[in-house]
Amino acid sequence: MAHDFEDHCWKDIIDADTLQIYQAYQRKIYVGDNPAVLAIDLYNKAYLGGDRPVKEVDREFSGSCGEHAWKALAPTQRLFAAARRAGVPVIYSTRHVDTRGVQSTNRNIKKLGDDVYDIKAEVAPAPGELVIYKERASAFFGTPLIAHLQMMKIDSLIICGESTSGCVRASTVDAYSYGFHNVLVEECTYDRSSICHKVNLFDLHHKYADVMHVEEVLAHLDGLAQERKVA
Amino acid sequence: MAHDFEDHCWKDIIDADTLQIYQAYQRKIYVGDNPAVLAIDLYNKAYLGGDRPVKEVDREFSGSCGEHAWKALAPTQRLFAAARRAGVPVIYSTRHVDTRGVQSTNRNIKKLGDDVYDIKAEVAPAPGELVIYKERASAFFGTPLIAHLQMMKIDSLIICGESTSGCVRASTVDAYSYGFHNVLVEECTYDRSSICHKVNLFDLHHKYADVMHVEEVLAHLDGLAQERKVA
Amino acid sequence: MAHDFEDHCWKDIIDADTLQIYQAYQRKIYVGDNPAVLAIDLYNKAYLGGDRPVKEVDREFSGSCGEHAWKALAPTQRLFAAARRAGVPVIYSTRHVDTRGVQSTNRNIKKLGDDVYDIKAEVAPAPGELVIYKERASAFFGTPLIAHLQMMKIDSLIICGESTSGCVRASTVDAYSYGFHNVLVEECTYDRSSICHKVNLFDLHHKYADVMHVEEVLAHLDGLAQERKVA
Amino acid sequence: MAHDFEDHCWKDIIDADTLQIYQAYQRKIYVGDNPAVLAIDLYNKAYLGGDRPVKEVDREFSGSCGEHAWKALAPTQRLFAAARRAGVPVIYSTRHVDTRGVQSTNRNIKKLGDDVYDIKAEVAPAPGELVIYKERASAFFGTPLIAHLQMMKIDSLIICGESTSGCVRASTVDAYSYGFHNVLVEECTYDRSSICHKVNLFDLHHKYADVMHVEEVLAHLDGLAQERKVA
Repeated sequence: MAHDFEDHCWKDIIDADTLQIYQAYQRKIYVGDNPAVLAIDLYNKAYLGGDRPVKEVDREFSGSCGEHAWKALAPTQRLFAAARRAGVPVIYSTRHVDTRGVQSTNRNIKKLGDDVYDIKAEVAPAPGELVIYKERASAFFGTPLIAHLQMMKIDSLIICGESTSGCVRASTVDAYSYGFHNVLVEECTYDRSSICHKVNLFDLHHKYADVMHVEEVLAHLDGLAQERKVA
Repeated sequence: MAHDFEDHCWKDIIDADTLQIYQAYQRKIYVGDNPAVLAIDLYNKAYLGGDRPVKEVDREFSGSCGEHAWKALAPTQRLFAAARRAGVPVIYSTRHVDTRGVQSTNRNIKKLGDDVYDIKAEVAPAPGELVIYKERASAFFGTPLIAHLQMMKIDSLIICGESTSGCVRASTVDAYSYGFHNVLVEECTYDRSSICHKVNLFDLHHKYADVMHVEEVLAHLDGLAQERKVA
Repeated sequence: MAHDFEDHCWKDIIDADTLQIYQAYQRKIYVGDNPAVLAIDLYNKAYLGGDRPVKEVDREFSGSCGEHAWKALAPTQRLFAAARRAGVPVIYSTRHVDTRGVQSTNRNIKKLGDDVYDIKAEVAPAPGELVIYKERASAFFGTPLIAHLQMMKIDSLIICGESTSGCVRASTVDAYSYGFHNVLVEECTYDRSSICHKVNLFDLHHKYADVMHVEEVLAHLDGLAQERKVA
Repeated sequence: MAHDFEDHCWKDIIDADTLQIYQAYQRKIYVGDNPAVLAIDLYNKAYLGGDRPVKEVDREFSGSCGEHAWKALAPTQRLFAAARRAGVPVIYSTRHVDTRGVQSTNRNIKKLGDDVYDIKAEVAPAPGELVIYKERASAFFGTPLIAHLQMMKIDSLIICGESTSGCVRASTVDAYSYGFHNVLVEECTYDRSSICHKVNLFDLHHKYADVMHVEEVLAHLDGLAQERKVA
């Protein structure tokens, strides 16, 4: 269970000089106290075109993460199930279909179906779970998320979803700024571009969050479920 | 003067598939209306150890950007001079030496001299220019920057400084969220790691800002100086 | 048209000592550049029970502003019409019916109809006008309002709606903090309690906004409509 | 110790109709979990001219709260001492002397001495206590206060200081919006104007905070000190 600090998907791409310079960030990583899961933008649009390479689905469905989205589906289901067993809230972000031309990024997008920003059924919110509607990349920007977290006495976040280089990164940086201890679940986080995914995870791991493997997080949540049952 | 949308430092590292997927972001790039220069963290600490490779200066001065910082010094001086001639405000960010243990990122840092967060003399603020003191990566987070920009009727930003993968990125994402059109000046922006610099500039260019070469921005500012002199 | 700085509804309640102390706030009042109208919480709930004293309608419809709401209806219609003729955007705030128990204030509220937070038909948004959904008193808190205003290059606000001592005050204080010049239209602003209305308007006028009479604001907007037609 | 919900300084000024309408806000009031004291703007300027009526000191020292400030000094000292005995953090706000013309409100102010924004010696921070520097009325606006509170796992606030109708009100409304349970200590909160003090306390008590008498809060803190000593 004890992974090396750099034993992550970025190993094949980060050079030795950078790794040496980034040794200053080495520290013990952990899931924080009283966490919530923050599930970023797991909406239908990310899965459009099916379990195929992004460059194939992209022709028809700009914004789809293709095979990367589909690969993350099973571990994300396990993550949410473990969180719910442990009494850890699962909080979602998505966006309204019509936000008067305001976008998360500069991408040129065409009009899509009305359900593209519904959370994908396989990982959908349970009744009563909080869904935050946002217009920008960060789940904190222009939303009441910080107030809900404060009222729920949440001290740390377990973050997953997409895209690593867009909304996940922006949300994680804001979460760090607000003072949360953050875990990013590697297998439940994805992007359209492999290099962007890896370098952003590398950045986030060293600067703003603890990137952990899903089995480590599941083990922690299972332990928490036991503790809280006893208590 | 007309550069290709992808004619930037990331050319040698971004793969063809990613470039294809990111074609959706192609658009005309430009310096926005009534801009201000936002100079991120041009403090002494970034230059410690001198004009040498980062892995060499890093041993003694963790956080220094070494040769990357020094290489950006001359173009940054030209940028600020052109901005001032055009009546474009130059706004700086830095941090207080003592912020009670609050940091921009998770890096382990040792105690440094009292002047490490003073802006480097060669690019220092002119009398009366605004300096924003921040505790986190973004120049907007926990600071009155947005209020000052609103009061100055600033509509767009010209961003430079360090580090590309830290405070520059966080500030640029926030600026986009607040509704500013952003230009990032490639030659005046730097990082400790080359791969992090390139991939973050790539991300920012496509999603949140127009990465432009310094000569393009200087030409625009010189034109603006002429216009404003006539007006 | 030139009203005295203190010629407002609070005259019968503010004592001479307070007026003397508050002379330090005297200044020229005016409608700012490139304004937008910010219409706070003009939803059906504020009008429930009809044009009767608040203490009568309150028994059945807690939260209604009764006769104060109805009295403001005609001047508010005139204000919006003049704004639209002048090309001044009208921006609304309201709230979602279900916000998971989060409230603007501590008031105990009972479940009401599904349309209580729809904007009252007589002052409803024209097609395409921006409606901000909020959970707290301020139209800025936890909403993307500041980003929309920045993108629309709005420099000042003309504020109206309810309640003076709740959402109008909170929104106006935030608007001042963000750097907007604010006008509050006295005849288009209301509260359930007369004393709270008057003292809050007094506070806001001196500290954060220019309280103006509706005919002054209408005259300004009519002038702006002429100017913009010519231009 | 059990005070009536309306047994406060506003009794002589709030009319019966308003009291009836505001019955909807009645609820049990209490000091929240894991509180911090938030001491608003207890700087020297508020005490200038000495323990005399505001209209007398105001001629020379605009912004002084005169006798109201001095009367609150002893109870505030008791409050801070009890908080420190209970391990409850005391957090201060003040402002920098030079903020480039940015002000909390529209008041016309003249240049004062360099120490006017130092916290008054009698209630000064102990070594290591957090001081937040702000430019606007609210201690949250444009400051990192929310991040510090989140990192300290503070769930509720005990607020005191000045002025009730300015910075105390703005800070309390923001604290409520961020999800904190707030107590306002009546005897430790003051204003230049008596009517503004009373009506703002009335508003805050019903909508955003529990206004409590200092002896109630002291009793709670003494109990907390006992509990925490035992634990």
